[in-house]
Amino acid sequence: MRITQRVKKMLDWYESDTPGTKAALARILMEGKLGGSGKLVILPVDQGFEHGPARSFAPNPAAYDPHYHYQLAIDAGLSAYAAPLGMLEAGADSFAGAIPTILKLNSSNSLATSKDQAVTGSVADALRLGCTAIGFTIYPGSEYAFDQMEELRELAEEAKSVGLAVVVWSYPRGPGLDKAAETAVDICAYAAHMAALLGAHIIKVKPPAAHIGLEAAKKTYETQRIDISTLAKRVEHVMQCTFAGRRIVVFSGGEAKDLAGLFEEVRGLRDGGANGSIIGRNTFQRPRAEALEMLGKIIEIYQGKA
Amino acid sequence: MRITQRVKKMLDWYESDTPGTKAALARILMEGKLGGSGKLVILPVDQGFEHGPARSFAPNPAAYDPHYHYQLAIDAGLSAYAAPLGMLEAGADSFAGAIPTILKLNSSNSLATSKDQAVTGSVADALRLGCTAIGFTIYPGSEYAFDQMEELRELAEEAKSVGLAVVVWSYPRGPGLDKAAETAVDICAYAAHMAALLGAHIIKVKPPAAHIGLEAAKKTYETQRIDISTLAKRVEHVMQCTFAGRRIVVFSGGEAKDLAGLFEEVRGLRDGGANGSIIGRNTFQRPRAEALEMLGKIIEIYQGKA
Amino acid sequence: MRITQRVKKMLDWYESDTPGTKAALARILMEGKLGGSGKLVILPVDQGFEHGPARSFAPNPAAYDPHYHYQLAIDAGLSAYAAPLGMLEAGADSFAGAIPTILKLNSSNSLATSKDQAVTGSVADALRLGCTAIGFTIYPGSEYAFDQMEELRELAEEAKSVGLAVVVWSYPRGPGLDKAAETAVDICAYAAHMAALLGAHIIKVKPPAAHIGLEAAKKTYETQRIDISTLAKRVEHVMQCTFAGRRIVVFSGGEAKDLAGLFEEVRGLRDGGANGSIIGRNTFQRPRAEALEMLGKIIEIYQGKA
Amino acid sequence: MRITQRVKKMLDWYESDTPGTKAALARILMEGKLGGSGKLVILPVDQGFEHGPARSFAPNPAAYDPHYHYQLAIDAGLSAYAAPLGMLEAGADSFAGAIPTILKLNSSNSLATSKDQAVTGSVADALRLGCTAIGFTIYPGSEYAFDQMEELRELAEEAKSVGLAVVVWSYPRGPGLDKAAETAVDICAYAAHMAALLGAHIIKVKPPAAHIGLEAAKKTYETQRIDISTLAKRVEHVMQCTFAGRRIVVFSGGEAKDLAGLFEEVRGLRDGGANGSIIGRNTFQRPRAEALEMLGKIIEIYQGKA
Amino acid sequence: MRITQRVKKMLDWYESDTPGTKAALARILMEGKLGGSGKLVILPVDQGFEHGPARSFAPNPAAYDPHYHYQLAIDAGLSAYAAPLGMLEAGADSFAGAIPTILKLNSSNSLATSKDQAVTGSVADALRLGCTAIGFTIYPGSEYAFDQMEELRELAEEAKSVGLAVVVWSYPRGPGLDKAAETAVDICAYAAHMAALLGAHIIKVKPPAAHIGLEAAKKTYETQRIDISTLAKRVEHVMQCTFAGRRIVVFSGGEAKDLAGLFEEVRGLRDGGANGSIIGRNTFQRPRAEALEMLGKIIEIYQGKA
Repeated sequence: MRITQRVKKMLDWYESDTPGTKAALARILMEGKLGGSGKLVILPVDQGFEHGPARSFAPNPAAYDPHYHYQLAIDAGLSAYAAPLGMLEAGADSFAGAIPTILKLNSSNSLATSKDQAVTGSVADALRLGCTAIGFTIYPGSEYAFDQMEELRELAEEAKSVGLAVVVWSYPRGPGLDKAAETAVDICAYAAHMAALLGAHIIKVKPPAAHIGLEAAKKTYETQRIDISTLAKRVEHVMQCTFAGRRIVVFSGGEAKDLAGLFEEVRGLRDGGANGSIIGRNTFQRPRAEALEMLGKIIEIYQGKA
Repeated sequence: MRITQRVKKMLDWYESDTPGTKAALARILMEGKLGGSGKLVILPVDQGFEHGPARSFAPNPAAYDPHYHYQLAIDAGLSAYAAPLGMLEAGADSFAGAIPTILKLNSSNSLATSKDQAVTGSVADALRLGCTAIGFTIYPGSEYAFDQMEELRELAEEAKSVGLAVVVWSYPRGPGLDKAAETAVDICAYAAHMAALLGAHIIKVKPPAAHIGLEAAKKTYETQRIDISTLAKRVEHVMQCTFAGRRIVVFSGGEAKDLAGLFEEVRGLRDGGANGSIIGRNTFQRPRAEALEMLGKIIEIYQGKA
Repeated sequence: MRITQRVKKMLDWYESDTPGTKAALARILMEGKLGGSGKLVILPVDQGFEHGPARSFAPNPAAYDPHYHYQLAIDAGLSAYAAPLGMLEAGADSFAGAIPTILKLNSSNSLATSKDQAVTGSVADALRLGCTAIGFTIYPGSEYAFDQMEELRELAEEAKSVGLAVVVWSYPRGPGLDKAAETAVDICAYAAHMAALLGAHIIKVKPPAAHIGLEAAKKTYETQRIDISTLAKRVEHVMQCTFAGRRIVVFSGGEAKDLAGLFEEVRGLRDGGANGSIIGRNTFQRPRAEALEMLGKIIEIYQGKA
Repeated sequence: MRITQRVKKMLDWYESDTPGTKAALARILMEGKLGGSGKLVILPVDQGFEHGPARSFAPNPAAYDPHYHYQLAIDAGLSAYAAPLGMLEAGADSFAGAIPTILKLNSSNSLATSKDQAVTGSVADALRLGCTAIGFTIYPGSEYAFDQMEELRELAEEAKSVGLAVVVWSYPRGPGLDKAAETAVDICAYAAHMAALLGAHIIKVKPPAAHIGLEAAKKTYETQRIDISTLAKRVEHVMQCTFAGRRIVVFSGGEAKDLAGLFEEVRGLRDGGANGSIIGRNTFQRPRAEALEMLGKIIEIYQGKA
Repeated sequence: MRITQRVKKMLDWYESDTPGTKAALARILMEGKLGGSGKLVILPVDQGFEHGPARSFAPNPAAYDPHYHYQLAIDAGLSAYAAPLGMLEAGADSFAGAIPTILKLNSSNSLATSKDQAVTGSVADALRLGCTAIGFTIYPGSEYAFDQMEELRELAEEAKSVGLAVVVWSYPRGPGLDKAAETAVDICAYAAHMAALLGAHIIKVKPPAAHIGLEAAKKTYETQRIDISTLAKRVEHVMQCTFAGRRIVVFSGGEAKDLAGLFEEVRGLRDGGANGSIIGRNTFQRPRAEALEMLGKIIEIYQGKA
């Protein structure tokens, strides 16, 4: 596999990792249309777990089939495909080696009585399914955050020891955080920083909004005149908060919105120095042709062509 | 053992499984009168644990004897027999190799103070008893659902690594679900989908009823015009929600009802594409001759002869 | 060791056990005056833990000495002696091989703040002490019942793998059960059935009383006309509920009562088909000579001579 | 090492122990001025953990130094020295082999929010520090008693398997026990009995007071006319309750009192058949010369010379 | 590596440690400008975890980069650099061998809902990152203190077995301690003593304030006339409470204050016999030149030159 200078430089950020894990990161970074550019777009499909199958797939019934997502990610020239155990098991052989996969190791669901997640896969599962990375969600601010961090610690250590990469979804939520606080720029940056401290190679956060969530942080943002006026500036701040840009950070697309709004958001992410996007519902809830077109446009934005 | 083309194709759905586990599935799918057809009927006898021995077996006292159920399942030409540890231990040698057995690894009981289950068997037990599969119940919606999913994760991983198949009973219940919600079509489909995501090979759910249980799902079912008007249509929806039919789903018989009603229900299951039935009390609470007749008729329905 | 035809037949009930565990059962069943008859009488001494030393042993101070109980069980021609760790440790060498011993692996006490038990011994302890079986108490109906069942599951699996037998004390108690319910015939039968399902070789329950404890079970007992009018009939029902008699069930003696009443009770147990008795306080709280006489009479009852 | 007939006989009480553990007990029983007599005096220094360093050591500042206690125990001709991890680590090499040491494996502290203890050392620690025994505290009557018993079970089994002795501090306390009940003779005897049942070789309890703590035990003490009128009689009862004297029981000195009172108490312990004393604060809170004199006198009492 | 007589003597305090762990301590004690003097200054950077990245690093944005801290610690001639997993992973290769590092194994954060910490690293992580020691925080007085102590016990035992040193941050806090009590001299001394008892090689506490926090301790401090009038006297007391000076104790700098005040405090620490300082925010929140100057001055104070 050819490794570009840009990717080589990014791999150097991961000073403590084995050649095995660096190779895993390289496989993701060299895959698809953005391969070699240092940018990446990932397709995550865990909404069936989170919201149920009909709410996730009925708008585009072809998406009920696990093979659909593998093929879509490949045809769109994406960097990787992330999903829970069963989804990967159902296509692991048909698409073996065709695209890097990320086994999502924990999941929540809409019937749950607590704001936690269940661990539903293992590092051994990731290996037998031929995955390139494990994925894990933490909820900073939740009553379960310490437990989740300790679960992640164990899984990440094991993953690194067998040449897998570690992708962390860091989603602030909990009794002390209202809906607005969950996307506040300071809390988003803090969540990204904690994922980096926990040893994540790739960090997923939501696009940060232009307000401060933590009372104790307001003074700092005012005094230090941290510019949070545009999405690009806020993303720049998040990248700085993840080891001055020494970690890969990708941003989710959030709720389905119109395409113009989505592209505008991606331009903001790109201009702020984001490493890429991770876009689920916006992708698979559209007809395949539209989804391919949309992803093509997003890739062009990261290529600086749109 | 001969493997039909139909069964061969079903085994191909399980892309990540070892030849050992595929052979286990094949043994179930090739067993009995429905062997090779892709359909299956399983006899489960865990009601002694759930409701107590007298309520389960007094209507047909021969059923107090564990040998009775083994013999009944064999004589009726069923696909497999599922029971908790002690029930299998009491007949494992007499009926060694005579019919595939499924060791039910967790159980609840009517004296319990919480809506959970105790793990009462292990994968090692399944191996020493010559079982073909393990069985495990989860209660999506319960306060114990995350713990149960994590227990299942560990047991399923271990079972798959030693050539056993994994059968999951997915029964929604919990503080947020009333009696009606437990069989609502959206929740039934969601429960089946989660079992698939958790890596189940065979999924057992209850026949779905014609209403929606989750407020947040109502809009989807209306907007997307998902047809839930007949049992066949609802079953079709459940099958779609389990990886577009890439997983085996069997349906329980529920409370004892009259035979005409039961056969009508099975026809609905069959017409919706269900892989089969799993029928306990309706079987063993009848005199043996009647039970054999009933099972013969159900098998004929699945064969399209009745 | 000679094995009678009767005992050979009983060993055949345990279809899944290793020759090692069957030999352990045989050692108990061939021991003492009832050896070979299929009947057994066990001496359990865990009351020091449950009620304290003075309340247990002051009525007969010789019983403070652990050697006393070993010798009494031997001299009376009993089948086995059961006690917690320390009690066996204190005589294991003096009486090595002299009588089968059962290491009681969990215990409660009168100072406890919850209705649970502590695990106070291990399978490895049982092996180093030369025991023939492990003993374990579960409280069906308690908030701790699921945990106890899971502890038992692990210990029983380990015990069976090293050639030990498993004796389960199944004592219903908990917030939903009043004093009467604890000995109700339906609940006693249910408790015995669950112990069998959990893989017990020998089950200990209390003599069942002539009332129904579980509201939901009343209809069954009436409709099915289950005869619970005499102790013998109730014991017959309990035996039926433990795999149609395929498991060994012994009954406790309960609170100290007069000898005539005790013998009458034992005759009822015998006539119902019980495998025997397990009698603690009634034994060791009497002077040694009286205890030997009493045990001799009980043995004669089981021999059909009294 | 010479073993006296008296000690040889005591070692025979421990019927299930390995030669390694018997040798450990022999090292304690043959050490110091009471060596060979079957009596022993132990110096325990865990008060720094329980009450803080200043409250423990400020009255005699030389005692801040861990070496002080080793040297004091040696110079006084004691049988063993017991302390938590750090205290032994700080002198383990200087005093290697100079006196048997007991690693206290759990400890509480005055800042704690619950009446539990933390496990702060391991059997492996005891081995690397050259200890002769492990020490462990249980609180019968506490909400944590079952957990502590299970921790002790594991540690004791491991200790016995590597040739260490097991010393149990059995201190009744908990929501159902008031201050008086904690030292009531029946509860003290019960606590000692439970430690013996849990497999302790040496048991430490507080001197029993002349009242009954457990309502349910009152009848027995009255009916059976158990003599609790003098300390000697009460100690005799405690010794009887620990396997009719087949276990070593030592008594604590409790709160600092005047010397005359202390010596009087020790005479009562001796006359009741106690195996010895374990005296902390009374020792190290006095100037060294006074402490040596006091310990010399106590030893003489146990020798029958004072 | 040359070892001074002073350091050799300090290594002798650690009587139970392997040559591997003593070498680790020696590497820290011989490093930097204070190398060989028995004094040390450590740079800790875990404030990003505790307070978030912006509040920690925005005052001096260069500090967002993990490399900044490594380089600063090296250029200032410090003894060691301590940080959580991610921070060390991001520079472990660039600065391999350049300065002893301490992997902080647990961390809290400002979004947390409980006053606990998550374990976010392992001893294996410390080894693969080439660290010299592990760091761990306990909160004596907290509801989680016993759990934290047990976590520390396991990690410390493992660390010692592989030649690492153990640094314990002992910070009293909890429902029974108000803000003032957290730095009260008696509680600070108690916290340091407990860390020593738990087996710490290096202990970090806050500078003790001139009041007593624990009601029960007041009498001792008055009666025994313990001098707590000056910082030097209080530090002397803390050193005495850590095994009469047989353990290394360093003091934190606390909240940012003016330089004159900081230097005055360090002089007090030095005069009381402290082994050194551990200074985070005061260091990295200043421009690099100012930080180097400040650290130079602190080192001179410990050298007795300022």
